[in-house]
Amino acid sequence: METKYFDDFEIGDAHFFDYQYEVTEEEIMEFGNRFDPQPWHIDKDAANASYFGGLIACSAHIFAMWCSIGLKDGGFPVAAVSALGFNNMKMVAPIRPGDKLKHEIKVKSLRESKSNPGCGVIEFSNEMLNQNDELVFTIEHVVLASKRR
Amino acid sequence: METKYFDDFEIGDAHFFDYQYEVTEEEIMEFGNRFDPQPWHIDKDAANASYFGGLIACSAHIFAMWCSIGLKDGGFPVAAVSALGFNNMKMVAPIRPGDKLKHEIKVKSLRESKSNPGCGVIEFSNEMLNQNDELVFTIEHVVLASKRR
Repeated sequence: METKYFDDFEIGDAHFFDYQYEVTEEEIMEFGNRFDPQPWHIDKDAANASYFGGLIACSAHIFAMWCSIGLKDGGFPVAAVSALGFNNMKMVAPIRPGDKLKHEIKVKSLRESKSNPGCGVIEFSNEMLNQNDELVFTIEHVVLASKRR
Repeated sequence: METKYFDDFEIGDAHFFDYQYEVTEEEIMEFGNRFDPQPWHIDKDAANASYFGGLIACSAHIFAMWCSIGLKDGGFPVAAVSALGFNNMKMVAPIRPGDKLKHEIKVKSLRESKSNPGCGVIEFSNEMLNQNDELVFTIEHVVLASKRR
């Protein structure tokens, strides 16, 4: 897959990654124990008795899974120079063991970089859906990307 | 430490957690290999030769470390019902092996919840600093929190 430069994008361009992230009980509990040891992330019985009705992935795990899908897929390489920031991250619905997560990325806005004439700033909006096409996670990220030379 | 309810907060209230997160080379590379396998996260020689001049923690690892500090510290328990979202997340400066990360949380805004009369919405702004008091990470998060009954 050919690397995409700033000039290659238009607002509304969308890409669905082929790679799907399979969520395991083991990884949910590992992340919970290390970074967010609340009962619904680390203890099956307590999770079953909780509001969530079962184990759910913690925020740190969800963001990590999202980060990885594009890289594991490799099918949408952007000539990114730097990640400028992440906005409007929302855990929309619980992510549970056995879920398969799909990631769609869309171009939300494009502008020239004032400080880097060889670059532009791309704002992407992203959605993760589970195997039932339920929306589970949204995030926007802003990237400084090279122009074609 | 007593749990803090919505009513207990005022805008500008700040808390510095005692717990400091010690960043290890091993964990930087583990996270990189699993979630963000770029040379500056996983390969010491390639990282040394890169723009960053050495291994740096990936975004997924940084967000996970930030999530964990408050929970590992335990010194600022909020009667949170739900995390409503995360905003303006920025990796301000590289985080490297051996860094010790400190986390300060501040109340940015407070409002009543329209849909949950027993709750309020608290917006927190957060900073992580390293052992040289350099700002390395910022994020805002919004929490639905119970009122005192």
